Amino acid sequence: MTDPLPSWNDGPAKQAVITFVKETTAQGSAKFVEPEERIAAFDQDGTTWVEQPAYTQVLFAFHQLGVLAAKDPSLKELEPFKTVLSGDSAAIAKLGIPELLKVVTLTHSGMTVEAFQKTVQDWITTAQHPRYKRLYTDLVYLPMLEVMRYLRANGYKVIIVTGGGQDFVRTYVERVYGIPRDQVVGSAAGTTFGYDASGKAILTKDPKLLWINDKSAKPVEIYQAIGRRPVMAFGNGDGDQHMLEYTEAGEGARFMMLVHHDDATREYATDAAMSVFSPGLMTQAKQRGWVVVSMKSDWKRIFAWQS
Amino acid sequence: MTDPLPSWNDGPAKQAVITFVKETTAQGSAKFVEPEERIAAFDQDGTTWVEQPAYTQVLFAFHQLGVLAAKDPSLKELEPFKTVLSGDSAAIAKLGIPELLKVVTLTHSGMTVEAFQKTVQDWITTAQHPRYKRLYTDLVYLPMLEVMRYLRANGYKVIIVTGGGQDFVRTYVERVYGIPRDQVVGSAAGTTFGYDASGKAILTKDPKLLWINDKSAKPVEIYQAIGRRPVMAFGNGDGDQHMLEYTEAGEGARFMMLVHHDDATREYATDAAMSVFSPGLMTQAKQRGWVVVSMKSDWKRIFAWQS
Repeated sequence: MTDPLPSWNDGPAKQAVITFVKETTAQGSAKFVEPEERIAAFDQDGTTWVEQPAYTQVLFAFHQLGVLAAKDPSLKELEPFKTVLSGDSAAIAKLGIPELLKVVTLTHSGMTVEAFQKTVQDWITTAQHPRYKRLYTDLVYLPMLEVMRYLRANGYKVIIVTGGGQDFVRTYVERVYGIPRDQVVGSAAGTTFGYDASGKAILTKDPKLLWINDKSAKPVEIYQAIGRRPVMAFGNGDGDQHMLEYTEAGEGARFMMLVHHDDATREYATDAAMSVFSPGLMTQAKQRGWVVVSMKSDWKRIFAWQS
Repeated sequence: MTDPLPSWNDGPAKQAVITFVKETTAQGSAKFVEPEERIAAFDQDGTTWVEQPAYTQVLFAFHQLGVLAAKDPSLKELEPFKTVLSGDSAAIAKLGIPELLKVVTLTHSGMTVEAFQKTVQDWITTAQHPRYKRLYTDLVYLPMLEVMRYLRANGYKVIIVTGGGQDFVRTYVERVYGIPRDQVVGSAAGTTFGYDASGKAILTKDPKLLWINDKSAKPVEIYQAIGRRPVMAFGNGDGDQHMLEYTEAGEGARFMMLVHHDDATREYATDAAMSVFSPGLMTQAKQRGWVVVSMKSDWKRIFAWQS
């Protein structure tokens, strides 16, 4: 038997994944899960890739703001754009969600959906992470890619359930995770139907925010997107709590996992500014038997390019 | 070679499907479509099953209104419920979309999503169509089931893009069409996260309408759900026009088909009250080379149970 999870150290977390998959897929097992019910939901930022020093999509938005400001210098006089464009890390770190959303909205609307996809594609295939000096898509966690592959090989449908914008994440999920675009459930803004000058039907991204896919919105948007309750859920903080609770509350076999960032040497050992794994959640996880992954001790390798 | 579409008479419509599938899937073909781009979108009411004398979901809503009125007789005094409960077909036929939405909203909210699924399941596995005296799910068009099967066998992902509520349609799509629930894009109302008395996470259907998946909303909701433009689109009237235009406007090979209800003997030869195939759409279809299916002459068999 080949080890399906070679980047995991032997231990309860690795064993929990393997036991669950075996028990839910063996014919005649008391915990057997019908193939169409085999849904595994993964948060992205901090669960399947690095979310430090900031969400990758926020860094993309900051970059695009620079592109826009070069064409329209008046943006440099308007907050919160002025602060972001200043490059002052301390001041930027103090910006709240509403300010960041203004930057995201400005940089994510006013173009066709294809033009947006192209812009993301151009950036994400070239921009480098400040610490690792690598593409952001190189910063996916190899142990989680192995879990996804193992699940798919056992008839599970793997979905990404992210606070990130689904239009952003969909540009690279096939290549990076082997997940089809329609298996991404993310935050969403409006899309407007119209015709271009030649009469061709087009869709344009508009600035209206439809939903932020975080906390209690996650189970709601999972249901709207797929019409089922997952049997497995993977997260890394308070934003995933409701998704894990919703997963847990279903009938039959259930699997809930939280990634704990405790590896300052290879990755990070603090919560991201906007993504907290609170002591309350840790207590809840322990009480309920949710699996908590220590990146430091459970993961032999974190990135595919690391020895 | 086995005929993939045995319920179709030989003719240009059948040939168009077969030629398109061959040309878009043969390696080296000038019209080759990459596997991940192979998306085929099907409208449901009037395209894959009967939509007369009314949309199936509306008939379900009318039935549920009766169930509710038996518990709460005050509904019998309130319009539009009073008219619906009267059973007066002529008066009911005059109700507009806003009135029907009131009936749908009342009967589709205030319960958990699982309770709603169970109610639909109970009705749709027992209720009979007034003319055919058969289950509504027996009234799917065999020729379209064959097209779906043929497409899937050639690597196409088949999605349902319906004005019907996605929560309603998802209860039977796997069984009836072989389509996973998450490949249904329909109208949607709100869902609320909460906890039941025992502290378990639950989702409840709420009355807020989020979108009606018709006309220009169809391409928008396809994009929101799957992040791609389909390469094939199948519809049967003006509600599908924008979806076909959007499909047509993409790069590379494109396939657009409209079903024309012209078979009064075996099915219906008039448009449904809320679903019109206008002369303008027919003209547009002919000018653009969209395939128009005559149910009377293109379909050898309409239903699987018919000889």
